[in-house]
Amino acid sequence: MKKLISILLLLIIFKPGVQSQELVLANSDRIESRILALASFGADADGGISRHAFSVADLKAREHMIVLMKEAGLIVRIDEAGNIIGRREGKDHQLSVICFGSHIDTVPSGGKFDGVAGVLVALETIELLNTNKIVTNHPLEIIIFSDEEGGTVGSKALLGILTEKDLKLISNSGKTIGDGIQFIGGDPNKIEEAKRNSKEFKAFLELHIEQGAFLDNEGIKIGIVEGIVGIETWLVDIYGKANHAGTTPMDIRQDALIAASKLIIAVNETVKSVEGRQVGTVGEIMAEPGASNVIPGHVKISIELRDLSQEKTLSIFERIKQKMAGIEKETGTRIEYFHEHSNLPAIMNKDIQYSIEQSAKELGLSYKFMPSGAGHDAQNMAKITPTGMIFIPSIGGISHSPKERSRIEDITNGANVFFKTILAIDRN
Amino acid sequence: MKKLISILLLLIIFKPGVQSQELVLANSDRIESRILALASFGADADGGISRHAFSVADLKAREHMIVLMKEAGLIVRIDEAGNIIGRREGKDHQLSVICFGSHIDTVPSGGKFDGVAGVLVALETIELLNTNKIVTNHPLEIIIFSDEEGGTVGSKALLGILTEKDLKLISNSGKTIGDGIQFIGGDPNKIEEAKRNSKEFKAFLELHIEQGAFLDNEGIKIGIVEGIVGIETWLVDIYGKANHAGTTPMDIRQDALIAASKLIIAVNETVKSVEGRQVGTVGEIMAEPGASNVIPGHVKISIELRDLSQEKTLSIFERIKQKMAGIEKETGTRIEYFHEHSNLPAIMNKDIQYSIEQSAKELGLSYKFMPSGAGHDAQNMAKITPTGMIFIPSIGGISHSPKERSRIEDITNGANVFFKTILAIDRN
Repeated sequence: MKKLISILLLLIIFKPGVQSQELVLANSDRIESRILALASFGADADGGISRHAFSVADLKAREHMIVLMKEAGLIVRIDEAGNIIGRREGKDHQLSVICFGSHIDTVPSGGKFDGVAGVLVALETIELLNTNKIVTNHPLEIIIFSDEEGGTVGSKALLGILTEKDLKLISNSGKTIGDGIQFIGGDPNKIEEAKRNSKEFKAFLELHIEQGAFLDNEGIKIGIVEGIVGIETWLVDIYGKANHAGTTPMDIRQDALIAASKLIIAVNETVKSVEGRQVGTVGEIMAEPGASNVIPGHVKISIELRDLSQEKTLSIFERIKQKMAGIEKETGTRIEYFHEHSNLPAIMNKDIQYSIEQSAKELGLSYKFMPSGAGHDAQNMAKITPTGMIFIPSIGGISHSPKERSRIEDITNGANVFFKTILAIDRN
Repeated sequence: MKKLISILLLLIIFKPGVQSQELVLANSDRIESRILALASFGADADGGISRHAFSVADLKAREHMIVLMKEAGLIVRIDEAGNIIGRREGKDHQLSVICFGSHIDTVPSGGKFDGVAGVLVALETIELLNTNKIVTNHPLEIIIFSDEEGGTVGSKALLGILTEKDLKLISNSGKTIGDGIQFIGGDPNKIEEAKRNSKEFKAFLELHIEQGAFLDNEGIKIGIVEGIVGIETWLVDIYGKANHAGTTPMDIRQDALIAASKLIIAVNETVKSVEGRQVGTVGEIMAEPGASNVIPGHVKISIELRDLSQEKTLSIFERIKQKMAGIEKETGTRIEYFHEHSNLPAIMNKDIQYSIEQSAKELGLSYKFMPSGAGHDAQNMAKITPTGMIFIPSIGGISHSPKERSRIEDITNGANVFFKTILAIDRN
């Protein structure tokens, strides 16, 4: 009899998958209704969402979230940077915190899913812990970061890298970031108190819509993010000679727009000529004097390169520079560049990637390791704690647009992977 | 003795150049001082001239010119379009009028020579006729056209093609063209009375600075204009797909700026691939949404082609269209174009070109037949009367700029060719 009990106990303890089959999993109806409810804050006539950080719509949506978080049993506070932090205690108050979350602010005329999916999946994890009557070992914190779209403001404040200068920048709401933080219940005068110590944290996890078309095109359900790419930006000035479009023969022109066109194509071709998933973009162009009957004398363009390896982006720019020299010679122009911005890549924690992979496997969901081409709060959090990111498909890869859409089924799958990954992190 | 006298007489009559050596020729000091005097109207601090049509500076400069014209014995009137017309009767009042002139209005921050050189050379011809006590067979008229820089307004009115819509356009002075015409003494309500009948005219002649670098580079003194090039302008929209610069892999992008760059280079290469002096320019470009981190979804450019043959410019555009189709395919974009503007070429009269050539030869001045790449009042006058144009060198080809400069010596040479050409037209 004693032996039989031991065997039964062993079966219960060791049979793989038993626990997950027993767990109540994510409720897609709840997720869907919550997405729709949040979409009412800052809704535009065209189905888009304009819920800029620090707007009234943002404030109202935050109040709505605080109610939901409290209903789920969280102890909610707003930190000095305006981040909403909802805490659920674990078995051992002395253990470091497992935190997870995303943001609910949007770009102007954005979509219903960017950020929101991650916040509601984080809340769904709390709901599932409640439903399954699980108390984790570690304390848990949901963080709804303030002003992600304005430059990951809230997560920068957690790192203590938000500057006085940042606080004076004008946000999309029209308010300065400092005034905006005040408006949503933070305290810009004590912004340094929002800084957290890395020892406080065990890990950070964020789910986000992919904002690209890779998962959707391939029919893959879960993206396991290997890292968030670094971004290097240059501003390039091309100086030619403005001249009369009628009286200047073709062979003596110093047309800055011809040079710029050659450079734009050179950037594209150089980026594509190297093996890998790096990307390169010229998104801005300005030609002066800018009249149909004047040869452009000055053109300004941006060059942006992204990859998980900064070494790679810098070496690609070296190749572009070599081509610049040839273009200068060929077109009689002078090209000057300025390295405007450097955002280092953020590598995701390998153990967390593994936990995400195991969770996807247990749930029978297809998955793929991939970089994140876009920036997220996770890239800041990775600087102070082991961090992971889960992507779910964006239909057609469309984001920052009223047409942004993800399937509720895909978000629900993501919620399940997320829930199981949190449990795995808590166990390890 | 009788034989000797006959021989001497024959020598005097037939020896080429004798007449020109006897004539008093242009006075370079007078021309220079008059250029400096005119440059005081609308002078900018940087040496440039801002004497927009219908400005106070324009009005004052016109009053100054009217005084000079009257001092030279001309009967001066202002027509309904604000053109200043100074008449010198000929031997036969019934003969058609030989007219000549240019303009004294400038672009904002323009130079001292554009238009002014032609007006003062025209006046110099009257002075030389007076000095040499010559009465021409035909009546002569100097015309100082109103608002040339705003679209050859005065000469259009002479043709009767200035519309009600044109009169409502806002000019650089801030006034509508109609109000501007009123301001300088015209009558916009009777604008149709400015129209002249082609039978009234025998010929029109205009001297102008080249505004290009051809004569200056080649060291040639006189440009004999074969015609004023036609201008064809298209607006081109390139539609790609705006997308996230980080999350969109290189191979699935539909980058409107890559397509635009290829098209800009295609325009340049196509224009250069054809024998001749045609020119083609992309002077305007606009990319949307225009952020360094977004792939451009829409780019708008202008394409301008100029040549003495419209058939040629249109056939070049056909070749560009063929390249457009390839670019669309290659880049996954859609290119739409709109033929915005068509300005037909104006061919200069062959007999007058010949008279200019003969005059230059007699004066021992180097000359070259060439097209005018810029538009002038002569292109309108060519529609109602045999018309000729004389170019003199622009230093460095610079025009519409405070740095615009022509040598007084070159203007004086031009004045002599001009004077002799008017005499030749009168004789024929």
